[in-house]
Amino acid sequence: MHAPSPHVTVREVGLRDGLQSIARTLPTAQKLEWIRDAHAAGQREIEVGSFVPARLLPQLADTAELVAFAKTLPGLVTSVLVPNLKGAEAAIASGADLMLLPLSASHAHSLANLRRTPDEVVQDIARIRAARDAAGSRCLIEVGMSTAFGCTIQGAVDPNEVLRLVQAVLDAGADRVGLADTVGYADPRMVSELFERARRIAGERLACAHFHDTRGLGIANVMAAWQTGITRFDACLAGIGGCPHAPGASGNVTTEDLVYLFASMGVQTGQDFERLLALRAKVAQWLDGETLHGTLWRAGLPKTMKEAA
Amino acid sequence: MHAPSPHVTVREVGLRDGLQSIARTLPTAQKLEWIRDAHAAGQREIEVGSFVPARLLPQLADTAELVAFAKTLPGLVTSVLVPNLKGAEAAIASGADLMLLPLSASHAHSLANLRRTPDEVVQDIARIRAARDAAGSRCLIEVGMSTAFGCTIQGAVDPNEVLRLVQAVLDAGADRVGLADTVGYADPRMVSELFERARRIAGERLACAHFHDTRGLGIANVMAAWQTGITRFDACLAGIGGCPHAPGASGNVTTEDLVYLFASMGVQTGQDFERLLALRAKVAQWLDGETLHGTLWRAGLPKTMKEAA
Repeated sequence: MHAPSPHVTVREVGLRDGLQSIARTLPTAQKLEWIRDAHAAGQREIEVGSFVPARLLPQLADTAELVAFAKTLPGLVTSVLVPNLKGAEAAIASGADLMLLPLSASHAHSLANLRRTPDEVVQDIARIRAARDAAGSRCLIEVGMSTAFGCTIQGAVDPNEVLRLVQAVLDAGADRVGLADTVGYADPRMVSELFERARRIAGERLACAHFHDTRGLGIANVMAAWQTGITRFDACLAGIGGCPHAPGASGNVTTEDLVYLFASMGVQTGQDFERLLALRAKVAQWLDGETLHGTLWRAGLPKTMKEAA
Repeated sequence: MHAPSPHVTVREVGLRDGLQSIARTLPTAQKLEWIRDAHAAGQREIEVGSFVPARLLPQLADTAELVAFAKTLPGLVTSVLVPNLKGAEAAIASGADLMLLPLSASHAHSLANLRRTPDEVVQDIARIRAARDAAGSRCLIEVGMSTAFGCTIQGAVDPNEVLRLVQAVLDAGADRVGLADTVGYADPRMVSELFERARRIAGERLACAHFHDTRGLGIANVMAAWQTGITRFDACLAGIGGCPHAPGASGNVTTEDLVYLFASMGVQTGQDFERLLALRAKVAQWLDGETLHGTLWRAGLPKTMKEAA
């Protein structure tokens, strides 16, 4: 096994991808505490929320306030999800460092979820890029290409269509693109093949892997993507988020387990276990009653790692 | 990623490694039904029990009866765990196809668990080999080398010591050897490195990988071992077994999730999901109240795989 990079970024998306799929709304004060503690634990990239209409996702209605706070923390890359131009304008106004625009490679899922075809979303990206540049903003535009490994509505998604869209979003002005398996359909072989091919198109602009652990392959898929050269991975503290298509099933890969994977292999994430697990305990208390995931919090670090620390 | 083998064996150890760590005793009739259904689901290698004194593990006291039944099922490799020469003699008498002898590479763990040093266990293997040959038995002798990646008592275990013991057990007459991480300390990099090195010593006689999912890396470790050429993996249906050092934490990698991993990658295991999940449901009912693990049973197969089937 080659070791493509001695350090990686585990990007925290619990406040966005996690909380958006939990019905209750976490008070803003707790979110601010979460962001502060996550930064103190060494997290340097956090997706704090979404600029979507509050009637659709009331849980994330305080995103602008969270961005404003996150911007005060040194060295923190603050990102937000934006569904469209209007959201992008809010992101630019908020001062966020990065906006993540979801694009579903599955035509059926794109229509069902965003009410637009993938190519209409590509056109949105061009408009967002123009708006960003016109505003003199340096907010990065990253496209998160979901259903890249299959779709619960459409079934198979042709890898050639995914790759065509990777090229299209870069041509439209996206700064970066990531591949996402939000439904837990990917396996390590699919991940290796698609990321290798996407890298030949996007080079270093292929900048993120987003996996869900719905069928237990999340960490193995992260490994496969890392072996192709990817160094940035989305994850949720305590694996919050779940899977809307499989009640009780796990959602995003779990931050603390991912940090453990890399730390054990001698790959730096900059994150501190003790603080991370303390924050996890706090979040578990705030979300009392929700199904949480992950293994490290229960098993603790191996004696071998504690000795090394 | 290379694809070292188009088919693999997922060896069921739930009846032994799983049940031995659960306090209640499953009635023999249910175990027989389990073995019959597992065989019908396509499992062709099952560890049915242990020849240990019944006062130590009353849950496994019916092992001889289980072997006798398993031997009636066509094409099934029936294996048992044996702790010593006396157990080996019982295994030979039972007609089992394979006996698994545990050897702990950690000196401290070996003393605590087996009350013998690793080298004393090596001497046992020579005696067991002599007894097997004297009996004219064809029962294979496989050594399961545990704590190969670290130990909860001793901490670090020197890989050179593991490799020395691999050579020693083969010299003593073992037919095969496998490396085991029963405490969940291994990561994919450690797995790659140690299996590569062990293969240079043992060649095809390095024949099994046994991982626990204590810290979420079980499946990723299986992938890493498979990439070095290993084609035989231990697993427990429903991930039963747990981890004695971390209450509630997962134990062995879960059979149905492992079968899913390989099936998704186009690697044949010969196991049928529908029958496997039906058996899982049955076992879950029999073990009502025990902590079970695994993800596939909840999430179901991806639409893409159902279409392909």
